[in-house]
Amino acid sequence: MNLLENLKWRYATKKFDSSKKVNESDLKKLKEAIQLSASSFGLQLYKVLIIESDQIKEKLKPASWEQTQITEASHIFIFCNYTKVIDKNIDDYINLKSKSLNIGTKDLEGYSDFMKNSIGALSEDMQKVWTAKQTYIAMGNLLTACAELKIDACPMEGFDIEKYNDILALDSKDLSAAVITAVGYRSGEDATANAPKIRKSIDDLFEII
Amino acid sequence: MNLLENLKWRYATKKFDSSKKVNESDLKKLKEAIQLSASSFGLQLYKVLIIESDQIKEKLKPASWEQTQITEASHIFIFCNYTKVIDKNIDDYINLKSKSLNIGTKDLEGYSDFMKNSIGALSEDMQKVWTAKQTYIAMGNLLTACAELKIDACPMEGFDIEKYNDILALDSKDLSAAVITAVGYRSGEDATANAPKIRKSIDDLFEII
Repeated sequence: MNLLENLKWRYATKKFDSSKKVNESDLKKLKEAIQLSASSFGLQLYKVLIIESDQIKEKLKPASWEQTQITEASHIFIFCNYTKVIDKNIDDYINLKSKSLNIGTKDLEGYSDFMKNSIGALSEDMQKVWTAKQTYIAMGNLLTACAELKIDACPMEGFDIEKYNDILALDSKDLSAAVITAVGYRSGEDATANAPKIRKSIDDLFEII
Repeated sequence: MNLLENLKWRYATKKFDSSKKVNESDLKKLKEAIQLSASSFGLQLYKVLIIESDQIKEKLKPASWEQTQITEASHIFIFCNYTKVIDKNIDDYINLKSKSLNIGTKDLEGYSDFMKNSIGALSEDMQKVWTAKQTYIAMGNLLTACAELKIDACPMEGFDIEKYNDILALDSKDLSAAVITAVGYRSGEDATANAPKIRKSIDDLFEII
């Protein structure tokens, strides 16, 4: 099975070869894997910033506990969730759906109201948590896409969200950095590359009922 | 690219053919895809219940807004996050790592303390949110694994967490249902099967910096 082979191949890369860059054609595929990710109601309530700029990477590094992946990796993917859900988010989706399915927005009004009511019932804090969770599905797909293309990646939560939001001016856009991934090619000196994968046993992880 | 083809093939299945069951060999692969999922620090702070019992499915259905996927799908995967992180969770991981790498736990003490301090600094509410987020990576991998095996799936958040925790007696195990996925085979009558996928454009979703 391709997926299993790819998941076994990947590892959280600690040291990247900064001379190697992910090419445009592969970047396009990585973006498409993220774009195709499932999300609650299909709303995709996040934006993904892809950092190529060395200058921005240098600014992000101290906000990432000085982890060297930030400056040595080819690209940093920053998954940013919307911090609140407004009617416009739902209306945008309904318009997209209406166009794709070639039906009037009037016919989608019931579904639109259902979403608005369901999401409106959540506190702003709960909305924020909910949109952040969705980014983890997309981030997981990025890891899988990288592995299929034999691109290395390191998913990271070890960064200062407030500092990231500040550096990237996310607050004013109602966005917040949720999780990031450094993407590029492993350095020959990455000692962790050949370490065995540590995973709970199937018996520990699952229960059939 | 296999992943992109598989992601395009899949859709959130609304109607399953209840006569078709996922076989043991495929189930094993689905479990392995979940097991291989990335997680923060590699801790995998969740458990996955796989519901085969028709009786339990019947109990879960009213707690899932009567959605028919619950009783018609072959298996329901319930991703349950740990609601608090205790030292034992970290110690278990350290023991696993020590055995896998054939090094003494003493040599991993620094890393163990680092994890304990980082996670200990989070409030219980934040710990719960954090462990729940990790389940979304695993759930995403389940969707991808299903697609590769041409098994249908429906990821679902539309269920009553408290009722699930009650029915499955999760509270006493410090677990909580985070997200679920119905897995099986689409019914020929599922009208949504051939609907075009609705996704934001690449330009809307990404920003290169």
